[in-house]
Amino acid sequence: VTARRDGGQRRGPGRPADGGDRKAAILTAAREQFGAKGYNGASLREVARQAAVDPALVHHYFGTKAQLFVAAMELPFDPAERIAAFLAADEGDLPETVVRGFLGIWGNPDFRPPMLALLRSAFSSEQGATMLREFVGSVLLSELRERLPDVDPLRLQAAVAQLVGVAVLRYVVRLEPIASAPEADLVRQLVPAVRRHLQG
Amino acid sequence: VTARRDGGQRRGPGRPADGGDRKAAILTAAREQFGAKGYNGASLREVARQAAVDPALVHHYFGTKAQLFVAAMELPFDPAERIAAFLAADEGDLPETVVRGFLGIWGNPDFRPPMLALLRSAFSSEQGATMLREFVGSVLLSELRERLPDVDPLRLQAAVAQLVGVAVLRYVVRLEPIASAPEADLVRQLVPAVRRHLQG
Repeated sequence: VTARRDGGQRRGPGRPADGGDRKAAILTAAREQFGAKGYNGASLREVARQAAVDPALVHHYFGTKAQLFVAAMELPFDPAERIAAFLAADEGDLPETVVRGFLGIWGNPDFRPPMLALLRSAFSSEQGATMLREFVGSVLLSELRERLPDVDPLRLQAAVAQLVGVAVLRYVVRLEPIASAPEADLVRQLVPAVRRHLQG
Repeated sequence: VTARRDGGQRRGPGRPADGGDRKAAILTAAREQFGAKGYNGASLREVARQAAVDPALVHHYFGTKAQLFVAAMELPFDPAERIAAFLAADEGDLPETVVRGFLGIWGNPDFRPPMLALLRSAFSSEQGATMLREFVGSVLLSELRERLPDVDPLRLQAAVAQLVGVAVLRYVVRLEPIASAPEADLVRQLVPAVRRHLQG
């Protein structure tokens, strides 16, 4: 669950010294590509070219485009795994699973700093906004849309907005009482709202 | 509605040249005080001392503490006026009035940049986070709480979170379709969620 795929700054003892440099160069190129062209527009071949490495090395180090994207965002968890857990829930349980999953990620003190950094970067640069837009749109929501093909995209995004707003007030603005509210109270308050968005 | 109370950088033709400087000094001191001590902890006397002006001048230029706070935040509208409009609504109309009022402020191209700056500052500094917390908590929510004394504060904040999240996705992340959705579609989607939070 906590697997990091970037490892750009870490080197195994037996790894050649330039392995870390090449990984770091790939991640830098990936952030520029994703930030400039968005998730769908970015090409792994172009990332490789910009990082001056063989495209096969990008695959070797980072796997798929989605995995490279996650690594470039320096998220401390794999959203695909989280989403797989959402998708496994019965449709009736989905609102609660999504709310609990979201609060669980933000409630984890290891996950929160990179999530905050992600949000912060969206406010401070065009590239950051594009990265977050692509992450939410192309990674998170596209999976949810597959799971809930009949739900209007605006409804899905209204549900996401409810959760994003809670994260902002709870962890950035730190407004009381929402900042200190027990997770169970938030679940009780948010699940009906999310259910209303998703299920009408 | 669009009255600005700061005017720190502007000078009337007959006003002495140092009027603008003193206003600017008061606003700088106010931002420091509010950011360091919060809305309730800040004192106009201390602001005046820090700006090296007479306390009466603070009142003369900026009026009440709430008005100084609004001026220090460089908001292009007076939240008290907006809130008065909310308070005038029948309780049954309140969710729709609040949603329309919020979207109306963000939809106004003159109001949006300072609102974005306010959100951005909360992400980039402790002082910014404190300012936004005090603004939402002591200015916006305290009035709403008076209007809806029986509503649990967590419910009020969940409603605010719904709206804040929409502003983040629509205007910062600019995720489609919520970024381009007509205001009427958002009203239709958000009013039931806000109503559920406020009215259970």
